[in-house]
Amino acid sequence: MFDKVLIANRGEIALRIHRACHEMGIQTVAIHSTADNDAMHVRLADESVCIGPPPAKDSYLNIPAILSAATIVGADAIHPGYGFLSENARFAELVEEHEFTFIGPTPQHIRMMGDKIVAKQTAAELGLPLVPGSPGPVESIDEIKALGRSIGYPVLIKAVAGGGGRGMKVVENEAQAEEAFNLARQEALAAFGNGAVYVEKYLGRPRHIEIQILADTHGNVVHLGERDCSLQRRHQKVLEETPSPALNREMRERIGRLAADAMRKMGYRGVGTLEFLFQDGEFYFIEMNTRLQVEHPITEAITGIDLVREQIRVATGAPLGFAQADVKFSGHAIECRINAEHPETFVPSPGRITEYHPPGGLGVRVDSALYAGYRMPPYYDSLVAKLIVAGTNRNECLMRLRRALEEYVVGGIDTTIPLHQRLIAQPDFVNGDYDIHWLERLVGLKK
Amino acid sequence: MFDKVLIANRGEIALRIHRACHEMGIQTVAIHSTADNDAMHVRLADESVCIGPPPAKDSYLNIPAILSAATIVGADAIHPGYGFLSENARFAELVEEHEFTFIGPTPQHIRMMGDKIVAKQTAAELGLPLVPGSPGPVESIDEIKALGRSIGYPVLIKAVAGGGGRGMKVVENEAQAEEAFNLARQEALAAFGNGAVYVEKYLGRPRHIEIQILADTHGNVVHLGERDCSLQRRHQKVLEETPSPALNREMRERIGRLAADAMRKMGYRGVGTLEFLFQDGEFYFIEMNTRLQVEHPITEAITGIDLVREQIRVATGAPLGFAQADVKFSGHAIECRINAEHPETFVPSPGRITEYHPPGGLGVRVDSALYAGYRMPPYYDSLVAKLIVAGTNRNECLMRLRRALEEYVVGGIDTTIPLHQRLIAQPDFVNGDYDIHWLERLVGLKK
Repeated sequence: MFDKVLIANRGEIALRIHRACHEMGIQTVAIHSTADNDAMHVRLADESVCIGPPPAKDSYLNIPAILSAATIVGADAIHPGYGFLSENARFAELVEEHEFTFIGPTPQHIRMMGDKIVAKQTAAELGLPLVPGSPGPVESIDEIKALGRSIGYPVLIKAVAGGGGRGMKVVENEAQAEEAFNLARQEALAAFGNGAVYVEKYLGRPRHIEIQILADTHGNVVHLGERDCSLQRRHQKVLEETPSPALNREMRERIGRLAADAMRKMGYRGVGTLEFLFQDGEFYFIEMNTRLQVEHPITEAITGIDLVREQIRVATGAPLGFAQADVKFSGHAIECRINAEHPETFVPSPGRITEYHPPGGLGVRVDSALYAGYRMPPYYDSLVAKLIVAGTNRNECLMRLRRALEEYVVGGIDTTIPLHQRLIAQPDFVNGDYDIHWLERLVGLKK
Repeated sequence: MFDKVLIANRGEIALRIHRACHEMGIQTVAIHSTADNDAMHVRLADESVCIGPPPAKDSYLNIPAILSAATIVGADAIHPGYGFLSENARFAELVEEHEFTFIGPTPQHIRMMGDKIVAKQTAAELGLPLVPGSPGPVESIDEIKALGRSIGYPVLIKAVAGGGGRGMKVVENEAQAEEAFNLARQEALAAFGNGAVYVEKYLGRPRHIEIQILADTHGNVVHLGERDCSLQRRHQKVLEETPSPALNREMRERIGRLAADAMRKMGYRGVGTLEFLFQDGEFYFIEMNTRLQVEHPITEAITGIDLVREQIRVATGAPLGFAQADVKFSGHAIECRINAEHPETFVPSPGRITEYHPPGGLGVRVDSALYAGYRMPPYYDSLVAKLIVAGTNRNECLMRLRRALEEYVVGGIDTTIPLHQRLIAQPDFVNGDYDIHWLERLVGLKK
């Protein structure tokens, strides 16, 4: 086991890793920018090293400074958290070249999954389903019709050079194919100077379902069920829950097994998450995150497994202490990401925390680096707290979440607590009836 | 289900009940003294009624004022919490006479278990084991010798009129019986003017083990395992854990079944706790608490059952939603009672809370009515927070407790947090090797 771990991160995730280390008897080293001298992760760590000023590129992303800090303090291992350098393959390589253990997957796997095209090719080779479509540009109306027959309508015509919805047409049936194809090519040519288009199955109301993977270096891989992260605003997750209200047991086991098998074939190690779109009972791989995720606590809540502890254990080379059959799912859990932002305009709101009182009691977990008197700097991510609530079923969990949000006091800055209160009061949410566009419709970003 | 519950208590337990009510969609009414105008339970309740000044006899123990408050607000039910009126049979009777539901057992059962002699007789009739001994005073040395042979040495001779250790003699074997008997009688006569003595089996190093019971009004009774509450100072519990490090599965099931059977025979309803001394594999009933207990959260942690929710449910007449076979025990939990007292002298330390920051993260629950800026009045119990920590096993739980105690910040008053830190660092505690006298030896009250 490691004696000393350097935590190459800040905020709540640095605190999360510190806690796991201390519970394993491991000493912790915080790194921090000059803007974070008073940050909670610095206050709680056994040692701390200031590695530079804000912004992040001069400190939390400064690889030589981080490696120097690790050398100076004599760390055994480096935990990257999420964000910052956590999916930087070169960082992982350099960590290992400097003879520290990188608490994460191999640099090769990080690199492979960091390139979205390579990631999709790899996923397909590993047997994971992708959104079906044309292998490349389509040249004729007959090709589109053939695809429509094989993958089923609606299909989506997209510009190869595209973005922002231009050159994009939904085709509901074969009769619409010709006009849509012609329009899409004209728009694409006008917008991008390139009229090439391709075709994909159109998912109108997909959910974002992801599978948590945990793997050791001995070929043991388990999946820890799914998380439904469909509630997003501008591709940022806002609230996550598990189990997904949209999945039944058969679907859960099918996609979990598929994901675990893929990771076993790949020789993956550590924690990782396979993200899928889900609609009409089918899963479509979109990407993989080769790191701990923000929303990992809801998986911990329903499995009883401490993911950061396990991540650290497998990084030492220890085998997993349990098999898939030992993983039991119990109850329901929801996480609210609480951001320092205005709950309607989403304008960031850094500043001094005048009052801070998190909720407590049965089934309530708070992961936050906030404290009363803390002066939150303006340089970093606006996520300031995660409220994780567990109950024996979804309804109990929702009621508990409601009362926990009522109790939460954060004074001096705006937070998205009122957004969460509004969100969980919506009948669609209560019924579990939402997709990845639902929240943007609620907050008026989409019709 | 109730629409509105009046909570006849204060502090963390009033908050605990408020939380359970809100999670069930029940409105809450706080009562409070003039000293508690700013108390957390008052701030969070939907309504509040001031029922008088401190001390408690003029407010929290003022039955007519509480019943008037319940009438004025139109409450359906009254929850007494623990302490105060929770084991006052007359209060329970009056609550029901005024046509409110008393969230607790029948007045008859409260009365029966409130009288320690009646409670022991009842327990014996219900098949629960008592500390064996003479049925009344012993008159001769032959009686003592006969008892010694039947119940086994050592035995304890105690003065019928006694207390404070006077007239009390431990008899290790038959050869010591005569001298001890004569001395005990002489001391008892000198101290109390009454030389009568009786004999009990001497338990030198017992543990305090209690069984949590939950019963509905339809004859369904389950036990929710044991709590080891041996760590006491002046008969006040300081730290509780479950499962007990001293019990094996057979012992747990035996005493649990015995306790549940006794409650079924008795027709008990609601939550209740049967307390036993435990030594050398044997249990000896000492008393029953006919109410929710301070340490109920550790049972919630390892069973996943919300005891206050269930208590409220069965008070409505609803049947238990599960049977004994559905109760699963998982992991380990410890509660630290954090008192506003000097950690060495135990001098109470009320006053203004200047800083308050509870620990968070995985496996940590805090039940407390403290907040920064709160002015804690000097009139009430010194228990100000309960830190409940759960882990998959005892070692993980201990490590987590250690880190949670490290993080806990309470400024402006003394607390017993340092006592807990000292306590859990002791090898005896780490080994689970302690009895009801161990803590008093540690803090220097006993040799």
